[in-house]
This record gives sequence, C-alpha cells and structure tokens, in this order.
Amino acid sequence: MTPEDRALLLDLLTRQRVLALAVLVDGAPSSGLLPFAVLPDFSAALVHASRLARHTAGLIGGAPFSLLIHQPDDGQADPLQLARVTLEGAVEPLERQTAAYEAARHIYLAKFPAAAQTFTLGDFNLYRLPFMRGRFVAGFGRIYNLISDTFKSLAHS
Amino acid sequence: MTPEDRALLLDLLTRQRVLALAVLVDGAPSSGLLPFAVLPDFSAALVHASRLARHTAGLIGGAPFSLLIHQPDDGQADPLQLARVTLEGAVEPLERQTAAYEAARHIYLAKFPAAAQTFTLGDFNLYRLPFMRGRFVAGFGRIYNLISDTFKSLAHS
Repeated sequence: MTPEDRALLLDLLTRQRVLALAVLVDGAPSSGLLPFAVLPDFSAALVHASRLARHTAGLIGGAPFSLLIHQPDDGQADPLQLARVTLEGAVEPLERQTAAYEAARHIYLAKFPAAAQTFTLGDFNLYRLPFMRGRFVAGFGRIYNLISDTFKSLAHS
Repeated sequence: MTPEDRALLLDLLTRQRVLALAVLVDGAPSSGLLPFAVLPDFSAALVHASRLARHTAGLIGGAPFSLLIHQPDDGQADPLQLARVTLEGAVEPLERQTAAYEAARHIYLAKFPAAAQTFTLGDFNLYRLPFMRGRFVAGFGRIYNLISDTFKSLAHS
C-alpha cells in the first residue's frame, strides 16, 4: 500500500463518524447507519446500538457482519472513485460491568462525548466488530485486500 | 408523514448519489458502495455493478437486498440524527437488449452521464432493486415505516 493510500485508510477509520452496518435478520441482509469508533490497535470497530433498532436483532455473538465506511460524497467527484472500505467479521456483544465493556465505553465516549446520555439507557448495548478481512478501494485501480496483519501494521504506522 | 419529512425523503432518493448495498454472499452479509438512480415512480433503485465486485455475487434474481441512503455527515450535527432510509426487497437483474433494460439505462445515464463508458464494458450489468418495505429516520422521534403505497404517493407529491 502506498503511504498516501495508507493515510487515506487511517483517515476513513479514525475521522469518519458513521458506518453502514449489514447483518443477518431472519436470513436476509439488514442494514443500518451507526456512529462508530475504532480501537487504538485497529483490530475492531465499536458501535453502540439500541435493541429497538431492527438491525440490532442481527448483533448476536458470532453472527457475521459486513460494514462499510466511505468518504462523504461532495457531489463533485466521480462517485465510483469515493474512497471506501468494507470490513467483515463476527459480532462480539460486550457484557456490561466487565473490563472490556468499560474500556470500550471509554474509547467510544472519547469520540462521542454527547453519547454519555445513551449509556444510561437500558436498551443500548456496546458491540465489538472485529476486522477479520476487508477490501479497501482508495480510488481508480487502487484496490487492496485487507487481512488481520494489515490492521496490526496500521497501529504501528 | 409531515410535508418537511416527505421533502427530506424525496431529497434522499433523488439528490443523493451513492447507497450502501447489503446482499448475501455465501450466507453472510456483504456490503458495497454503489451509485444509484431511482425510477420516476419511486418503485425501485437502479444500480450498475461490475461482476468483478464481491457484492455482485449476491445480485441474483429474487435474492434479498437491504440498501441504505443517508445524508452525508458534515461532522457537525449529532450523527444519530442524520436523515437516513433503509429499503428492502428482492433483486431483479435486467437483461440486456430488452425494453426494461433500455429504459433503465436511460434513467441511469440521465443522472450519471459519465457512466456511458461503463455501459460499453462486458462485466457491468444493471440491476433493479424494487422497494418492498423500508424505514425512514428523518431525525429524533421522526421515524416512519414505509410500505409500497408510500412510494406510490411520493410519485404524486
């Protein structure tokens, strides 16, 4: 990966605020928009979802997910060239009152301080979405398959 | 639906250029970013996808899809309040050299004139994504379930 494209991938993972999450609900794909934060080691995204949202029915331990993060479309450039990354893995719900939950809550709130209020609501839960594999399209002809080593190397760049 | 929210939904369907498409590939959700155009009767979205893209493997006739269209995040507002619509249905690939394909191509190219070149490539195909049901979140507490009658009424507003 070129240094420019690595910077673009880091930018998508850290500066974008929302992702499109696809999970399975009753055997069919279900998608939703969610704010997200990425762990400092780039191993996973964190989402905080309400049990009232339809896609949350697919956020069960071990269930497959596919998430998409992309540059916002400014209406100018060719929409096929928007930088985007798709990441896939298996869902890990985080149990309240565990160290993992508290660490994740801290990371999530560092990005979204205003979300503190939703953490007091009983119907919201935190989910870890570990990156097992992915595909990054930086632009025309700049396409990368991502594996777990790619994410580790991002943390050290 | 309030007139303001109806206008917001029309704006998402007609002025946004890209959608996040979720389909099933090998039993797992697979997501991708695609430019789209909506039919004038608001019955379906059209996407033009390359057979080389992974999510295209899920674009087979009758296969379930879930698509998401949202306001671009400008980094200012609460990301939970971004207007967004999720639409679901079953995929309809369009056969080349049919009247339906030609009509769809015309509508797609009216929105994306620069895509004319990709229509000359053998690996791209047009897909109709009919809206069977959906959910529209216009903002805090402004949530609507959409049924086929909703889409018909949009065409007459």
